[in-house]
Amino acid sequence: MSDSISLGTYLFARLNQKPLGLNSIFGVPGDFNLTLLDKISEVKDLHWRGCTNELNAAYACDGYSRVKGNGSAEGLGFGALVTTFGVGELSALNGVAGSYAEHVGMLHIVGIPSVDAQKNQLLLHHTLGNGDFSVFHKMSSHISGTTGVINDPALAPDVIDRVIREAYINQRPSYLAFPANMVDVPVPKERLNKPLDLNIPKNDPELQEEVIEEVIDKIRKAKDPVIIVDACCARHNANKEASELIKISNFKYATTPMGKGTKDIDEQNPKFTGVYVGSLSYPHVKEAVEKSDLVLSVGALLSDFNTGSFSYSIQTKNVVEFHSDYTKVKGATYPEIRMKELLGKLIQSQALKQVFKEHLHQSNCERTFTTPDAQKLRGLK
Amino acid sequence: MSDSISLGTYLFARLNQKPLGLNSIFGVPGDFNLTLLDKISEVKDLHWRGCTNELNAAYACDGYSRVKGNGSAEGLGFGALVTTFGVGELSALNGVAGSYAEHVGMLHIVGIPSVDAQKNQLLLHHTLGNGDFSVFHKMSSHISGTTGVINDPALAPDVIDRVIREAYINQRPSYLAFPANMVDVPVPKERLNKPLDLNIPKNDPELQEEVIEEVIDKIRKAKDPVIIVDACCARHNANKEASELIKISNFKYATTPMGKGTKDIDEQNPKFTGVYVGSLSYPHVKEAVEKSDLVLSVGALLSDFNTGSFSYSIQTKNVVEFHSDYTKVKGATYPEIRMKELLGKLIQSQALKQVFKEHLHQSNCERTFTTPDAQKLRGLK
Repeated sequence: MSDSISLGTYLFARLNQKPLGLNSIFGVPGDFNLTLLDKISEVKDLHWRGCTNELNAAYACDGYSRVKGNGSAEGLGFGALVTTFGVGELSALNGVAGSYAEHVGMLHIVGIPSVDAQKNQLLLHHTLGNGDFSVFHKMSSHISGTTGVINDPALAPDVIDRVIREAYINQRPSYLAFPANMVDVPVPKERLNKPLDLNIPKNDPELQEEVIEEVIDKIRKAKDPVIIVDACCARHNANKEASELIKISNFKYATTPMGKGTKDIDEQNPKFTGVYVGSLSYPHVKEAVEKSDLVLSVGALLSDFNTGSFSYSIQTKNVVEFHSDYTKVKGATYPEIRMKELLGKLIQSQALKQVFKEHLHQSNCERTFTTPDAQKLRGLK
Repeated sequence: MSDSISLGTYLFARLNQKPLGLNSIFGVPGDFNLTLLDKISEVKDLHWRGCTNELNAAYACDGYSRVKGNGSAEGLGFGALVTTFGVGELSALNGVAGSYAEHVGMLHIVGIPSVDAQKNQLLLHHTLGNGDFSVFHKMSSHISGTTGVINDPALAPDVIDRVIREAYINQRPSYLAFPANMVDVPVPKERLNKPLDLNIPKNDPELQEEVIEEVIDKIRKAKDPVIIVDACCARHNANKEASELIKISNFKYATTPMGKGTKDIDEQNPKFTGVYVGSLSYPHVKEAVEKSDLVLSVGALLSDFNTGSFSYSIQTKNVVEFHSDYTKVKGATYPEIRMKELLGKLIQSQALKQVFKEHLHQSNCERTFTTPDAQKLRGLK
């Protein structure tokens, strides 16, 4: 039995393998990706989902990734899309740009002319006729988290592993240029024995400790905190942590339009106030959020659609922002402090649990003395 | 009567004015170009050609420019296309890239968000959500001859004139980003009294003289020259000059697939051998071109389609290439020596006419002594 497989098969085996576990590849065949597409059938349980055009394929792949992310038990969303050089890949750009804007993990694989054709600067079809084969790669780089070009057989599997990893972890499309003549290059099969490491990088422990203390301090000083769950909470798989924070804090909470339906966020709980979308919100939601003196924002994606055309009336000085790749506590930004690990540590913190208890006691006391019935009892009304 | 007009009206008046004389503007309305489109109706005889999507609009505009170029009496082809920021303009890219690859003059006007929205980095719809409003401009720059962004009212008319001029002269798409809030900025109406200068830059006279001498020398030494007319001959309006060269030289001539149908090139003349497309040519065309010891190539566009998948068997050392922006005489390249003026001077050259006479005499003699009848008469057979 051969101890090598083709590079094309390696790519699809990686995508099919756990932890990714893709079963579908979307796209449109074209001159420069035909040999590559042949390799899909070599991977068991991996299926080609041919689409009627590349834009459809990009949207299908985007949807697949979203559903896989928010719907599956574990892990982030991911999808893969195959187009052909030039006219094919350009047709997919609007879909890919949408995935970039909304943090959707996706690998855009583009079958490109052979390395020799590029070296000789052939005026091939699908080119601009100027001998520059990197134009479309450059165009896509503006809407990609990272890009990779396969040109060296020895390094090719590393390039593949890198672009998959970055697309997955950052939940942004990666672009992979795959020359037609590299599809059958043999690579060691044993590389597949070690699954891809798709773990999110660990936060710096000392800096994270500092952030946790700051956040707890802000919560302690706040009288009326509120939690907002937004789109990137689900996209970056922080829903369980956010749900636990909601449960143990007993704070009121809202979602945004794009955060609505986030898995694990209970919308039946009395503490759930509804959907906050700036001036377009129901009055009670607007009041609950905007009168709060501390907003804990998880995975915000502040597009005009998602904010009621930027009609948020939350003051920056009252906000703690938990993001996939940084954290902001009021005015202070902490780069590389990622929300999933930070929220995980936060909800385990005994100090925070103590603060929540104080909050609960205080809020119960206030309720006792300030509800109409209590006021009547106390002769205030 | 007001002595100023809106910048939007200025743009469309320029496009409608001679020497361009556009009567149609193609495109698709969208949030960020609506106020701009309103200005089209202010220009007499200018019509909005709304399309069902931006890709269609780009192809319609491309076709309009080609027909205007090869079909009209004078001047180069030109068309104008209006799309909206982000998703709209990205949908047009394949069409615009095609115009770039095949030397089609076109202005791609994109209605973009207001300058203020950009300054404040609003997470507006159609953006990538990263506050970078220049992304789509950067993407288009790879398939544009030049680009321009309107951001200063005082300089705006100059930016408009420049992008039109460069798109026209170089027969490549230009990209113009037009912010929504700049449409009604007043500009002096009197600017329109001076029509746009769309003259092709003059060649350096001394260098041009050197090139003419070299070309005549090569023609003098050649025994069996052939002329090939290709796509860029029509695109850069050198058809009359090429036609005259064919007439006065009496050389045999061919077109390429993309050069076929070039205005003024007579396909009924006995000296017209047919369409040369490398190994896919009819045998007599292939022989006529490939056995020639001097190919005079006018406006070559050597794509795989146009060359029978690169099956040209012309030796570089036997070729004089006349291009829109340079000339190549065998191995020597002369930058900025543009074919239209060069061919114009060449066909007026008395020295060249003398060489043609010698060629004609020689070719008549050869015919006299080498046709089967002549050989019989001379007792050779």
